[in-house]
Amino acid sequence: MTTRDSHWKSLFAPDSVAIIGASNTRGSWGYGIMRHLLTSDKRKIYPVNPTAKKILGIPAYESVVNIPGVVDLAVIVVSAPKVPQIMQQCVQKGVKAALVVSGGFAETGKQGSKLEAELVKIAGEGGIRFIGPNSMGHVDTYSELCTLAWIGEITAGPVALISQSGNVGHRILHNGMSLGIGFSKFVSTGNEADLHLEDYLEYMAQDEKTKVITAYIEGLREGRRFLQLARETTIKKPIVAIKAGGTKESARAVRSHTATLAGSDAVYTAAFKQAGVIRVEDDDELCDVVTALLYQPLPRTSRVGILTIGGGLGVVAAEASEREGLEVAELTPSTIEKLNACLPPRWSHRNPVDMAGISLAENPTVFSALWALMEDESVDAILLQAPVGLSTKRLSAIFTKEEIKAFRESERNDLDLLRQRIPKHGKPILMVKPAVEFASDPEVFSLLRRERLPVYSTPRRAARVLNHLAWYKRYLDTNGKNG
Amino acid sequence: MTTRDSHWKSLFAPDSVAIIGASNTRGSWGYGIMRHLLTSDKRKIYPVNPTAKKILGIPAYESVVNIPGVVDLAVIVVSAPKVPQIMQQCVQKGVKAALVVSGGFAETGKQGSKLEAELVKIAGEGGIRFIGPNSMGHVDTYSELCTLAWIGEITAGPVALISQSGNVGHRILHNGMSLGIGFSKFVSTGNEADLHLEDYLEYMAQDEKTKVITAYIEGLREGRRFLQLARETTIKKPIVAIKAGGTKESARAVRSHTATLAGSDAVYTAAFKQAGVIRVEDDDELCDVVTALLYQPLPRTSRVGILTIGGGLGVVAAEASEREGLEVAELTPSTIEKLNACLPPRWSHRNPVDMAGISLAENPTVFSALWALMEDESVDAILLQAPVGLSTKRLSAIFTKEEIKAFRESERNDLDLLRQRIPKHGKPILMVKPAVEFASDPEVFSLLRRERLPVYSTPRRAARVLNHLAWYKRYLDTNGKNG
Repeated sequence: MTTRDSHWKSLFAPDSVAIIGASNTRGSWGYGIMRHLLTSDKRKIYPVNPTAKKILGIPAYESVVNIPGVVDLAVIVVSAPKVPQIMQQCVQKGVKAALVVSGGFAETGKQGSKLEAELVKIAGEGGIRFIGPNSMGHVDTYSELCTLAWIGEITAGPVALISQSGNVGHRILHNGMSLGIGFSKFVSTGNEADLHLEDYLEYMAQDEKTKVITAYIEGLREGRRFLQLARETTIKKPIVAIKAGGTKESARAVRSHTATLAGSDAVYTAAFKQAGVIRVEDDDELCDVVTALLYQPLPRTSRVGILTIGGGLGVVAAEASEREGLEVAELTPSTIEKLNACLPPRWSHRNPVDMAGISLAENPTVFSALWALMEDESVDAILLQAPVGLSTKRLSAIFTKEEIKAFRESERNDLDLLRQRIPKHGKPILMVKPAVEFASDPEVFSLLRRERLPVYSTPRRAARVLNHLAWYKRYLDTNGKNG
Repeated sequence: MTTRDSHWKSLFAPDSVAIIGASNTRGSWGYGIMRHLLTSDKRKIYPVNPTAKKILGIPAYESVVNIPGVVDLAVIVVSAPKVPQIMQQCVQKGVKAALVVSGGFAETGKQGSKLEAELVKIAGEGGIRFIGPNSMGHVDTYSELCTLAWIGEITAGPVALISQSGNVGHRILHNGMSLGIGFSKFVSTGNEADLHLEDYLEYMAQDEKTKVITAYIEGLREGRRFLQLARETTIKKPIVAIKAGGTKESARAVRSHTATLAGSDAVYTAAFKQAGVIRVEDDDELCDVVTALLYQPLPRTSRVGILTIGGGLGVVAAEASEREGLEVAELTPSTIEKLNACLPPRWSHRNPVDMAGISLAENPTVFSALWALMEDESVDAILLQAPVGLSTKRLSAIFTKEEIKAFRESERNDLDLLRQRIPKHGKPILMVKPAVEFASDPEVFSLLRRERLPVYSTPRRAARVLNHLAWYKRYLDTNGKNG
């Protein structure tokens, strides 16, 4: 099943949208979607409502067939039993594509399945491709289309998201944006009565604005096609996916959620591996991996150098690295010499590099040690748990205003050097910092985001990300260049 | 080895403190500690510095022996080779207890071990008990003592922390406070040349202000004593501990950090289980568990009810619960009936309870469903992933000011009911919410903290906490009441 370009344009970059079920009632779907649609002036918006004269100040039509102009996309937000009839009117009107938000179809049982089959038949015969039913909407930040009801503006960026759950999708959008991740396209696939996850994957694989594809998957309707597409895609851009429903009760929950079969977890694991899909556990891990993919190079191998300001932090980071499958690199004698030259004599003299309680006033030392690690040929990635990107509030506990200024200037120079050196060495640097120091502190957040340094709340999270990156690099080396 | 009460008082609630190595140099240890000591007027502070006339405006003494009054506690921050001589002067002065911050002892090799042995001999013969060397300091929030150099004020509360790493300890303090956790006492144990982790454990087990004891452990010097103490303590108050160094390279890092043996990971796992110690992986998990222990009752068993606003969220939560060892409870027919009465017909009709896209305007429905789950005899704990505690910013996208006010009032009433019902039913409620909606939003944070509702960024984290609580409850049932 492929969808012609014109259908994709009607779905994600329509020139006109009819919203059938538009509403003036705050807190309703028809209101929320209408509100989002009106935030862009790139297209004509036609609210359809049989009783209201105007919706949010825009003249409303009694039926989609009464709309004078062309309608590219119909957004349908009426109760399930009415949807087939509305779809029939869309066919009559010559609508090219639709989004069916309404729930109450196959996910509710036999009756709903019958209704869904009717809907598919009408749309199929009328040449309408559609998202849903039971979808929470879709987004294209570049065409400025948003049919979501329950979230604010979506930040534009290079990440596409295909989600078999609207709510999980919203969580990923919300979480991702809070970490500075921007999105190109989003689709809540709903019951996939017509368009399947595989169709969206094919579309987003070809989308130039999309650099990383992410997905929340409960079950695949076209498993073979998915794997073929994934194999073709992952050698060009990474796919990061949650596959849910791998346990007994969660698989049962999948059946009553999107009416699909979760399938064997082991089969998915093997298939994803074969196709180069990075499989993550939840939305925190998904955002963790995406941040690293966006900002850092892939490591050549999984040998990690660990740089910390304290022995205990090094112990915890080494343990996390080993438990996540990384190798704690053995430093070369030349690196040991370089570190001897810049660190106090009490430093650990091995990896993890414990800088042995150097004070904040010695911040340039952190960068000297970092350069030594980056130049070490046995180190392919670095976990950095050191006072880089401290908040002014924390610095104020120790320094005067003038000292803080000097600290910032010195740090600024070192960070400029770092930005140049990361691509040169091709070694990713992942920072470890308590969430409170990063996500909750706008100053630190904007500093480290500008530097494109990914930050993780624990060494375990950072190590897991590095292991994903190293695995993906191995996959590309084996399948990308030769395959 | 036990330490008489007078020594503990001198260590954690001294009437007078000499700080040997006090400094006017911002960014130095001697400055940072002095600064903290001066924040309380509960005791006399005597800075000792051979060259300065005054430290931070306080008259300084050339040596501890020159101090006119009694000195309960000496804080030693001079270079390692000078420490034995300083300790000798402390003996001469009649000092009762000491904290040795200076590093450069057993953790650095043979020479340092010799120096440490000398230090132990002098203190032992002179009747001084001491923390360290190589300690980052200690805290008693009730006596208002803080000998830390690199952190702001520590919030008072019921959690004690014993850490074999100063930096990991600081991370836990910092992280914990950002989540609203307060601390009674903290000690960075350093090399434990004199006082051992076991001594602090014994002391904190008896401390009335301490309701939960937490620890970061690399290696135990008195394993048997630890287990005996832990067994006696955990039936009265929980112990939550990180045991690090369980892999090859991390065990090597432990040796060069605190000069201890990490020991077999399997042995620790078994021993902790036998002694009722809740073992966690990192500081995020430690704070996760502590929050639940402080705010919620223990579940009778591990049967969990899951309440969500979307099917996908339910799938992910069910999977996380099963993977973490919980049982997804089977709802009784009477609960199904109650839920039929309050939820839209499309609800999942089983656990996980997917409320099927109810809108925010239907928030009271969330609480009706919650009451039904709480009353179900087959449900012993609840994972709640629903719009409770939304920020005004998020509500503003949907509601008018008046509607938000009404929403808040209705939520306020329901939360009051919830606060009464949790102890009545004895069923813990753990919320799942993206970090950005909780930790980063002061409004939501203060609302949910006031309600004592623990919040976790993913279902996996919440499920892991519940599994710890259920395990601890089983331990208490087996060992507490009968043992």
